[in-house]
Amino acid sequence: MTMDTRSELEHIVGGEFVLFGDRIEEDYTKDECLTVGAEAPEYVVKPVTTDQVARILRFANEHGIPVTARGSGTGLSGAATPAAGGIVLSLERMSRVLEVDEQNHVAVVEPGVTLGQLDEETKKKDLVYPIFPGESSASLGGNVATNAGGMRAVKYGVTRHQVLGLEAVLPSGEVITTGGKFVKVSSGYDLTQLIIGSEGTLAIVTKIILKLVPRLLHRTTVLAPFPTLDGATGSVPALLHSGVGPLMVEYIDRMTMMGITAFAKIELGVPSDVQDKADAYLLVVVEGRTEELLEKDVERVGEVLVGQGALDVYVLAGSAAPQLIDAREKSFWAGKRAGATDVLDIVVPRAQIPEYATKVREIAMQHQTMIVGCGHAGDGNIHLAVFQDDPARLATVMKELFATGLALGGAVSAEHGIGRAKKKYFAELEDPNKLALMRGIRKVFDPKGILNPGALFD
Amino acid sequence: MTMDTRSELEHIVGGEFVLFGDRIEEDYTKDECLTVGAEAPEYVVKPVTTDQVARILRFANEHGIPVTARGSGTGLSGAATPAAGGIVLSLERMSRVLEVDEQNHVAVVEPGVTLGQLDEETKKKDLVYPIFPGESSASLGGNVATNAGGMRAVKYGVTRHQVLGLEAVLPSGEVITTGGKFVKVSSGYDLTQLIIGSEGTLAIVTKIILKLVPRLLHRTTVLAPFPTLDGATGSVPALLHSGVGPLMVEYIDRMTMMGITAFAKIELGVPSDVQDKADAYLLVVVEGRTEELLEKDVERVGEVLVGQGALDVYVLAGSAAPQLIDAREKSFWAGKRAGATDVLDIVVPRAQIPEYATKVREIAMQHQTMIVGCGHAGDGNIHLAVFQDDPARLATVMKELFATGLALGGAVSAEHGIGRAKKKYFAELEDPNKLALMRGIRKVFDPKGILNPGALFD
Repeated sequence: MTMDTRSELEHIVGGEFVLFGDRIEEDYTKDECLTVGAEAPEYVVKPVTTDQVARILRFANEHGIPVTARGSGTGLSGAATPAAGGIVLSLERMSRVLEVDEQNHVAVVEPGVTLGQLDEETKKKDLVYPIFPGESSASLGGNVATNAGGMRAVKYGVTRHQVLGLEAVLPSGEVITTGGKFVKVSSGYDLTQLIIGSEGTLAIVTKIILKLVPRLLHRTTVLAPFPTLDGATGSVPALLHSGVGPLMVEYIDRMTMMGITAFAKIELGVPSDVQDKADAYLLVVVEGRTEELLEKDVERVGEVLVGQGALDVYVLAGSAAPQLIDAREKSFWAGKRAGATDVLDIVVPRAQIPEYATKVREIAMQHQTMIVGCGHAGDGNIHLAVFQDDPARLATVMKELFATGLALGGAVSAEHGIGRAKKKYFAELEDPNKLALMRGIRKVFDPKGILNPGALFD
Repeated sequence: MTMDTRSELEHIVGGEFVLFGDRIEEDYTKDECLTVGAEAPEYVVKPVTTDQVARILRFANEHGIPVTARGSGTGLSGAATPAAGGIVLSLERMSRVLEVDEQNHVAVVEPGVTLGQLDEETKKKDLVYPIFPGESSASLGGNVATNAGGMRAVKYGVTRHQVLGLEAVLPSGEVITTGGKFVKVSSGYDLTQLIIGSEGTLAIVTKIILKLVPRLLHRTTVLAPFPTLDGATGSVPALLHSGVGPLMVEYIDRMTMMGITAFAKIELGVPSDVQDKADAYLLVVVEGRTEELLEKDVERVGEVLVGQGALDVYVLAGSAAPQLIDAREKSFWAGKRAGATDVLDIVVPRAQIPEYATKVREIAMQHQTMIVGCGHAGDGNIHLAVFQDDPARLATVMKELFATGLALGGAVSAEHGIGRAKKKYFAELEDPNKLALMRGIRKVFDPKGILNPGALFD
């Protein structure tokens, strides 16, 4: 295919936007996943319009060339790792915020727009796109592909709850638009929702309609040490039941807290005698439209948590709150630096977190494997870093961690997606009837299987 | 098929739960749709367990017998109208609230549970399922099938935003479970979201996991008369931008308000000189966790609306608020009583409501057809009742109303669904590429086409 393919791609996007051979930088050969090795694509192509994407897909489809879409490459599951001999479709140049519509409270963006960039634009109009998976350089296209979550899910849900519509290109080169600038619709199967979280296997998203919400300017972070992890996570139902509607509810165990405060040099203001008694912390962020209303909510949070057995309640002052949240968001990097061999982002019903945590400790002991983690207490999403250099033992540990979570009513991935990294666990642990439906759906969208082959399932 | 079918069905569910011939009451031959005629099924079958549903489907699938699922029959699009020669699968006996889980804030229900019944159960634990499409006797299974909306969508979204997981039976008789007691998941295509809104064409839902929220006990209803309809709907962006987060934002035009207040004998407390100047009203309901916080929000609502040109702002006293909301929710029945020949529940971006309303008036004039309506100002969903006895002219008017809405970025149905009533407009106005994808998906789930044939598309 090579020369013909190259000239066709160059014809579509212009010579300078087709990379091949040595011109392909290492970045394009992988994402941030710890366990999926890099793979060089045949070409990296950088379209700038929907029409160019359509022409590339039509050509690739005709010639059976694999196409892997790529946003910022911040994914953690290997979903943006190229297929051998294929094209990486980098959407980095499709990076315009097309509209921030103040009347309908929506933004319309191209897939290469980053969360940071969108935040700058929405800020000008006192609006905000409230989903934040913790990495400002992540692209909205990638967020849609993985149904990205993050710490604010307890209040705002995940990407699928805030995406109202899409423009997407099918492998045939046909362009469809789904949904619109509205929340309410019941007009056939919801293709928007089907494409969200499909990891680039059904269609290439070229435009995204996002719901925005008012940017609430007042925010307070409360830290509550608890004598036990169960006590910390067990207080969450009462906290949410209070009606305060917190923006984030995270738990951090003693070891993780020591690690991140020492590394980031954060002064929490928690007296050392309290720290000594605290085996876990609950981190609660509350936002409000006025300082006065926020204070009432913070008071209520304090009452509830003390009633639930918190050792005390501290309002984090100055830069401690953003530092701690930032450190918490970057805990993947801490794990990576410490030499983690694999990570999980499993989800269980939030009330099952203590039970799951207990079982994780048992698995760690049994297989003499270090497993550390922290989690989104508000939504049952637990991040674990596993340190085990023996590949066979690592595989056993991983499978047990997944199977244990699933037995508690959970799912393999809460927010990273399946990609290439988790597909063997997904294939082994997921119901074959559901896998068959998914394969069937994939075939409807992509009969020749050119879109991100190797991701989700084989 | 008849004798064999009957004995098999009786074998599965017991003789008393298989109706045929004269034993089939009229209710089972239709839903509340104005335009889809009744059709008698061959059998009405009332299973009480998932296993019975699975056995019925397996049998029907083997013999190619159409199966139409039915909840409470309160639908407005003919989606529960039986197929000739088929089985109506009435889920009325699967009506148990299986669990109200206070730890995870979810309810697990069978599809025949009504909204009223669920509300009684959640009330005991100070929780609430916040979606309310306006009819307490509607079943949750029906709500899932149509992705039901209602007046609270501006705060809580629609059914798909509050359903976390499903148990569903495929035509093959296989039972799948999707999602779980969590909000965050990224593990393959979202089958939960795909089945929601599929109007019984992909699978039969036998269990539903619903997200619950704290039941906020304090609620105030504000009524703001505006000199023009544009003024009323035009104030909505500022209202939502204020961060108050209202539960409902409805507009009611002068004629509709006169009709519903006269019919329901509601005393609004709006002086007659103000009423004379008011061409439209905005109805805003705010809820809060304390009386004090609620008062602050109500104050802010008043300030914003007066700033946006409201003639004044009235807090509805006593029973006026629930009466007005109830009357508004029942406006379909008012239209039906008045002799409406068809209804629409179109959606447009909410800022396009005034433009759409203007065009509706033009269509009404041009075709000498009475068209009245009201709408959910917070979410762009407009309900229109069309009075036109000439079928050809009615078809023209309907098509123009749909096409006009779609041209403004809208969709055919916001909350009633397509069913049998709207499928010709859907087929004509929807993108053929999307229709082809939907047909393909339907075939993946239901290769023989036994599930609700005649609904959505042919």
